[in-house]
Amino acid sequence: MPIEGLSINLATVREQFDLAQAVDACMAQGIHAIAPWRDQVAHIGLAEAARIVESNALRVTGLCRGGMFPACDPARREAAIEDNRRAVDEAAALHADCLVLVVGGLPEGSHDIRAAREMVAEGIAKLLPYAKANGVPLAIEPLHPMYAADRACVNTLEQALDICELLGDGIGVAVDVYHTWWDPMLEQQIARAGAAGRILAHHICDWLVPTRDLLFDRGMMGDGVIDLRGIRAAIEAAGYRGPQEVEIFSSQNWWKRPGDEVLSICVERFNTVC
Amino acid sequence: MPIEGLSINLATVREQFDLAQAVDACMAQGIHAIAPWRDQVAHIGLAEAARIVESNALRVTGLCRGGMFPACDPARREAAIEDNRRAVDEAAALHADCLVLVVGGLPEGSHDIRAAREMVAEGIAKLLPYAKANGVPLAIEPLHPMYAADRACVNTLEQALDICELLGDGIGVAVDVYHTWWDPMLEQQIARAGAAGRILAHHICDWLVPTRDLLFDRGMMGDGVIDLRGIRAAIEAAGYRGPQEVEIFSSQNWWKRPGDEVLSICVERFNTVC
Repeated sequence: MPIEGLSINLATVREQFDLAQAVDACMAQGIHAIAPWRDQVAHIGLAEAARIVESNALRVTGLCRGGMFPACDPARREAAIEDNRRAVDEAAALHADCLVLVVGGLPEGSHDIRAAREMVAEGIAKLLPYAKANGVPLAIEPLHPMYAADRACVNTLEQALDICELLGDGIGVAVDVYHTWWDPMLEQQIARAGAAGRILAHHICDWLVPTRDLLFDRGMMGDGVIDLRGIRAAIEAAGYRGPQEVEIFSSQNWWKRPGDEVLSICVERFNTVC
Repeated sequence: MPIEGLSINLATVREQFDLAQAVDACMAQGIHAIAPWRDQVAHIGLAEAARIVESNALRVTGLCRGGMFPACDPARREAAIEDNRRAVDEAAALHADCLVLVVGGLPEGSHDIRAAREMVAEGIAKLLPYAKANGVPLAIEPLHPMYAADRACVNTLEQALDICELLGDGIGVAVDVYHTWWDPMLEQQIARAGAAGRILAHHICDWLVPTRDLLFDRGMMGDGVIDLRGIRAAIEAAGYRGPQEVEIFSSQNWWKRPGDEVLSICVERFNTVC
């Protein structure tokens, strides 16, 4: 029996498995939804990845990731958009629910976060027609403010939804509890996103205390302080019915354990604390 | 000649100097404004600290810190408020511009950040009459969202100002560029704070890329990505005329250098990039 409502972002087991191995391990646990990363797709080839998705009737809750729009040089910004079009192609081939956008931070040497944010909105505006033509919804993922400089200058749901409203349909947000749990406006903005039909993905993990690394110390659900059930309730009340997607980067813990064990604990925690 | 507009938060040289030594070193550089921490005051005694402040005609731009209000046990919350009253006494004795409040994070075992935020507002409400009676303005310092769990569940200026408005006069905010630079609402909320006369302190340092530690890897002004001049301009346009206070926690760099060198670089950067 497939487990309803659970997806695994394959970054969670990226040190243990390639895409094909990860899918086998997920299927063995009853997990029939995944979200791969582009490098994982490239490693086995897009055609083979698409074949694996199709033959296992997998739901692909997102392709990670497009984005990284800001650059000082206009030619580099154009190259980033072109690369995002290839990501759209891949998402379309995999029948992904969305292409997740990690929008990028400040260009090198820049102190102007407002300009970076404008480059993001402009880049997404240029990408969107291609995404719509290919039937791939774009999901802006606001990242935690600790990544504002180097990964994503869109740091709150409110900001992401403001961009969505500027751009019209075909675009929404990925709500990741790790990035958004602290936000005083979270419930209000989840309701806003839901009312506009813009919740495209729901990522889960946990915030550990202490957090020892800015990038690679995410916790398994239940090991941290995030009110996972409360946020899930808000997201479901806002009308989202898709799976919760587990995405854990953990260089010192989960990436060092056997992949099957990690997946089995994901299932257990999904059933008990999410 | 004293340097106008520059204050040193003594955490910046806490590994090198005690309060008395730090003041001598600051005076030697022409720095006539400081912000000590309570443990630094306790180490030499409040009376001696007050004597040093008076005999050198120092401006004390803030006492760090009160706060840490949330706790599951009501008796512990009451004890925290009582300790904050002692911090008010110390701030009054030092003629500090304000008592800086780092409000506290989630109580141990809690997943309920909304409840923690209510405890904060309640704690400050109970402290405020005593602070006003003693002529000590309270400055809520919103901390970066990466500290929401364990240090401060007030994470944006907007949130801090909402609490201020609930509570009336005698309370404002400390605007620290490290905690707020990423905030899409920063300029708008600085203007709001200024219009209400609530900007009580302006802390500076820089955000390094990469940041290697969540707590102790703050950068010297000019070494990171923060638009220091832009934020200063917004704060001054909002009517704040007090000093900029340098507060750098840096276990691997600035805390390892000679204190005089650190202070001299603070002066140089203050004159060139702030």
